Amino acid sequence: MPDTKLDIIAIGNALVDVIAQSTDEFIAAEGIAKGSMRLVDPETAEGLYAHMGPGLEASGGSAANTVAGVAALGGRCGFIGQVARDQLGEVFAHDIRSLGVAFATPPLVDGPPTGRCLILVTPDAQRTMNTSLGASQHLPAAALDHDLIASAAILYLEGYLWDPEEPRAAMRAAIDVARKAGRKVAFTLSDAFCIDRHRADFLALIGEGLIDILFANEAEILSLNETGDFEAAVAATAARVPLLVVTRSEKGAIALTGGERFAVAAEPVAEIVDTTGAGDLFAAGFLAGQAQGRGVGDSLTMGAIAAAEIISHYGARPEADLKALVAKRLG
Amino acid sequence: MPDTKLDIIAIGNALVDVIAQSTDEFIAAEGIAKGSMRLVDPETAEGLYAHMGPGLEASGGSAANTVAGVAALGGRCGFIGQVARDQLGEVFAHDIRSLGVAFATPPLVDGPPTGRCLILVTPDAQRTMNTSLGASQHLPAAALDHDLIASAAILYLEGYLWDPEEPRAAMRAAIDVARKAGRKVAFTLSDAFCIDRHRADFLALIGEGLIDILFANEAEILSLNETGDFEAAVAATAARVPLLVVTRSEKGAIALTGGERFAVAAEPVAEIVDTTGAGDLFAAGFLAGQAQGRGVGDSLTMGAIAAAEIISHYGARPEADLKALVAKRLG
Repeated sequence: MPDTKLDIIAIGNALVDVIAQSTDEFIAAEGIAKGSMRLVDPETAEGLYAHMGPGLEASGGSAANTVAGVAALGGRCGFIGQVARDQLGEVFAHDIRSLGVAFATPPLVDGPPTGRCLILVTPDAQRTMNTSLGASQHLPAAALDHDLIASAAILYLEGYLWDPEEPRAAMRAAIDVARKAGRKVAFTLSDAFCIDRHRADFLALIGEGLIDILFANEAEILSLNETGDFEAAVAATAARVPLLVVTRSEKGAIALTGGERFAVAAEPVAEIVDTTGAGDLFAAGFLAGQAQGRGVGDSLTMGAIAAAEIISHYGARPEADLKALVAKRLG
Repeated sequence: MPDTKLDIIAIGNALVDVIAQSTDEFIAAEGIAKGSMRLVDPETAEGLYAHMGPGLEASGGSAANTVAGVAALGGRCGFIGQVARDQLGEVFAHDIRSLGVAFATPPLVDGPPTGRCLILVTPDAQRTMNTSLGASQHLPAAALDHDLIASAAILYLEGYLWDPEEPRAAMRAAIDVARKAGRKVAFTLSDAFCIDRHRADFLALIGEGLIDILFANEAEILSLNETGDFEAAVAATAARVPLLVVTRSEKGAIALTGGERFAVAAEPVAEIVDTTGAGDLFAAGFLAGQAQGRGVGDSLTMGAIAAAEIISHYGARPEADLKALVAKRLG
């Protein structure tokens, strides 16, 4: 197996988040399931934007947040995702490149604008996401740099991107490239509603042995297994993937591999402001730990540290020096 | 004098801020005067953007921040400023309107893009601003709604907008409309370097008795009077304007009117994160107090409360409930 050029290459939605404070009443009045991610058409997005409060814009996208976090922790990363040739597309490209992440997907011309995620943050710091995929849904398989994918130790994919047809085909092709090159494939289940839409596909990917590292939260592992029994769900899925990581919000996280079970507590946070990106950054910390050759326990700790940083402020990209936070704990 | 429809109508730059963390070394290497605002051409802005870290986008513009703050405090406000017909122009319009501020300046077509202010925030929470005015410099006098200006108790103008020719002419016309309608004119000196560029004009406006309320910080009142003696500068300018408000960072603020001098201490802040907008929000609190018929002392306190909120997070638009913060203190 040739040397790796990158630690992680990720494929995901290329989105700019628009973060606004909201009340529970507003979310109920708009008929949205609180805490979920829903896809909205441009008209719905426009209507919601007109009603919601003032926003703060920050680059987002689940897998993009993850590689941003891995890069902030010193990992060598690349990202593949579709923006348009517009101002928000430039913002996305600038932000991810400024962290040292290789990003070369050519912007879409004559298509929809760069995708946006309207995020309503309630006083309990929960986020409810309304995604207008825009250009993101048009990532073509032709945009994949096969050599780059083959040169990365881990290919990381987000379940959200399974919704639109073109990127789904691109991800299937990328999995093929990575596996032929003897690389690992990591996958995040993203959202319980997303699993509802694609359960058969996700179970097939797992069943065919195409996923080496699977990330899920409690709701997602339950949804995947269509059960309300957490331990049963974890056991069922852990039997089918080499490494399973399950985040549990304030209860921390667990990882199961080779019959062993590891656990980490959640990091204490002075004030939880916005939980957007908590799962993305947990994955970032964990993957950065793996890239550094750390054990599963220390990788979980790195995930908990990165997740704690992200929920202490608005936005899903790190603001503090993650490297320093990890060095203080693990050396 | 007919009843007022608005408390404050402001004319200012319509900008979207791009906020990035920076080091002192980076600012020195880019040859920028730390703590200042400089105007940059599109090429310089592009070069700086390429070098700087990941950004957080939030609507800005000095006078726009001020009316956003007044509106958040319950004041009836309008804003006049030039955006382009693009994504950042939509962001600016959405944010200011979502606070209830009347904003109807038609977007510029076939001109430069919506203006941006690249803000570098150093670890000491100081902000250094690099403004690419874009569409903002093309605000035409024809864009003024004379009836709206005549219907507002106070016309509020920012010194920054004195730089480009078209808006300068528009502001002169607006002053004329306001004074003929018997309204008050408030003016903020904005920046010591800006005063260097327009000292004669600013002194002439004051000398002709066109300014009723003048806002300045320490550096600005010194620059206006070309002296290093703070008390002498304050005395000289206070003799020429009916109401002078001078902010003094951690030393609080003073106001001088009719031979009386009022002072307020700075509000304690748990952590100063980003001082962007401190002066803008001080003016907001003060003007909201005046609009509510409060005395100068209480208006200063409202300024201090609003300024303290804004420096406790990134971005120059309020995140906390300013009304509640004021009610807790002043009832």
